[in-house]
Amino acid sequence: MNTAIYGFDLLGVMVFAISGALAAAERRLDILGFILFGTITGIGGGTARDLLLNTDVVFWVGDPAYLWVCIGASLATWFLARRFQTLATVLLWADAMGLALFSVLGTMKALAWHAPMIVAIGMGMMTASFGSLLRDSLLGRPAVLLQPDIYVTAALLGACSYGLLQADPRTAAIAMPVAMTAAFTLRAAAILLDLRLPKYGTGPAE
Amino acid sequence: MNTAIYGFDLLGVMVFAISGALAAAERRLDILGFILFGTITGIGGGTARDLLLNTDVVFWVGDPAYLWVCIGASLATWFLARRFQTLATVLLWADAMGLALFSVLGTMKALAWHAPMIVAIGMGMMTASFGSLLRDSLLGRPAVLLQPDIYVTAALLGACSYGLLQADPRTAAIAMPVAMTAAFTLRAAAILLDLRLPKYGTGPAE
Amino acid sequence: MNTAIYGFDLLGVMVFAISGALAAAERRLDILGFILFGTITGIGGGTARDLLLNTDVVFWVGDPAYLWVCIGASLATWFLARRFQTLATVLLWADAMGLALFSVLGTMKALAWHAPMIVAIGMGMMTASFGSLLRDSLLGRPAVLLQPDIYVTAALLGACSYGLLQADPRTAAIAMPVAMTAAFTLRAAAILLDLRLPKYGTGPAE
Repeated sequence: MNTAIYGFDLLGVMVFAISGALAAAERRLDILGFILFGTITGIGGGTARDLLLNTDVVFWVGDPAYLWVCIGASLATWFLARRFQTLATVLLWADAMGLALFSVLGTMKALAWHAPMIVAIGMGMMTASFGSLLRDSLLGRPAVLLQPDIYVTAALLGACSYGLLQADPRTAAIAMPVAMTAAFTLRAAAILLDLRLPKYGTGPAE
Repeated sequence: MNTAIYGFDLLGVMVFAISGALAAAERRLDILGFILFGTITGIGGGTARDLLLNTDVVFWVGDPAYLWVCIGASLATWFLARRFQTLATVLLWADAMGLALFSVLGTMKALAWHAPMIVAIGMGMMTASFGSLLRDSLLGRPAVLLQPDIYVTAALLGACSYGLLQADPRTAAIAMPVAMTAAFTLRAAAILLDLRLPKYGTGPAE
Repeated sequence: MNTAIYGFDLLGVMVFAISGALAAAERRLDILGFILFGTITGIGGGTARDLLLNTDVVFWVGDPAYLWVCIGASLATWFLARRFQTLATVLLWADAMGLALFSVLGTMKALAWHAPMIVAIGMGMMTASFGSLLRDSLLGRPAVLLQPDIYVTAALLGACSYGLLQADPRTAAIAMPVAMTAAFTLRAAAILLDLRLPKYGTGPAE
């Protein structure tokens, strides 16, 4: 089981690193820019989580495999990106996959550090969105927090559903895959169907 | 006394959360945006302080009451904000109140962790301004550090006056209320009278 | 030797603080703005490094000398800056000097905390560039990560060459000065000769 978690964690770092490197491609940065944005996006969310949880060692400081995955994914993107017709679409789906993985894994790690449930859910949301936030902020793209499409909401769904399912012994075994699927499905629906929450001040009382 | 400090701390988080949610209202974000900006603004300053002091537990990670206050204040703002004629004015005064509370409470916590006085004053200034800085930066509003009105100066006054007064046994008992009042009064005067420090390059030597 | 490292560390903080205060001068901020930007730029990189390494005490929290150096350098810049014809040039070279010092000192501190080599090199790059990144981001200047000139590359050279040279007993004694000189020389060449890495999508395969 721990091997599966480690594998998902590396996979999440990889897909976020690809999304960061693709954002660097859109801005036509140099190869070091690809690596920097790939790495910042890949490890940004988990770094914020570990700093706030005050873990003994930030995950990538203790285990260099994470940095190598970021560097490798960024270099692969550098050489392969021009084969993709639409970088923006690949970026969007890599990001959605990372979102689903990290919303659950972030909640899981916070619970393992005995954070209260509301804190653990917040940590899951932050782990899933902070890397993208850093990427977009540094690139001058509009921050994901300001966009009306359902992004953080999907992370919230992943974090909450994992929190609920793991607390019940009957559902604990399936909590991880179900919650990841739920978060990804909601984000995918939001992308494909252009779903969004109602904005402030657009209700009938206005 | 500790109960009073805890109460002021929750109050500071609440007024900053309201200012964050009001900034979300100005940008017409959805309800989750209100909660996110309320929470980030409410706990941002204290989080930076606790990370830099390397406290055992970041305050809101150990005590979920802070997150509930942020969520509650953000939701209340969502439902009540349209009753206010001028969101910007309410935001300004909520922000001023948080500034006064956190400049003193931040200095107090740093001194309790045995930080040197100059460090504790810096921590007080940072606790008071970092939440607003995050809020404005993420919303694309002009950063408070760049504006000529007296904002950080008021936090400096609160931090310094608390530092001085608490060091003398004769004034230690009144240090907290006096310093909070001083910071709020200076910030209020700056808002009402449009006070500002002289800019670089505008002196007679130019 | 430790005295030399401490001296270089203070020197690096000082030149970055000057670059921060000069950036405040370009934006015509007030005297507190000079101190804030001087301090943020001076200690920003080392602060990020210490938080990620989870050192017991962030360097400037335990030793107030660093804050005094930032405040002194910022005040000196306030009074002396108008004597310089071209603030931008002084800023550029102060920044280059800080870059060279911190890329090596950051790697050194990470290795002393037993970080793996790839992590230590990343820490050196971050220590050298994070203060400038904060300065430019808060001032609304274009982020150094997006600019095509060789900035982070010079930090990478300093960090890598120090990492290699200190690992071999025959070169360990000269690792620090050689690596600092290498980083500074590459950055100076980049400034003077307008060197840059090839951008994505400009190769012959395009």
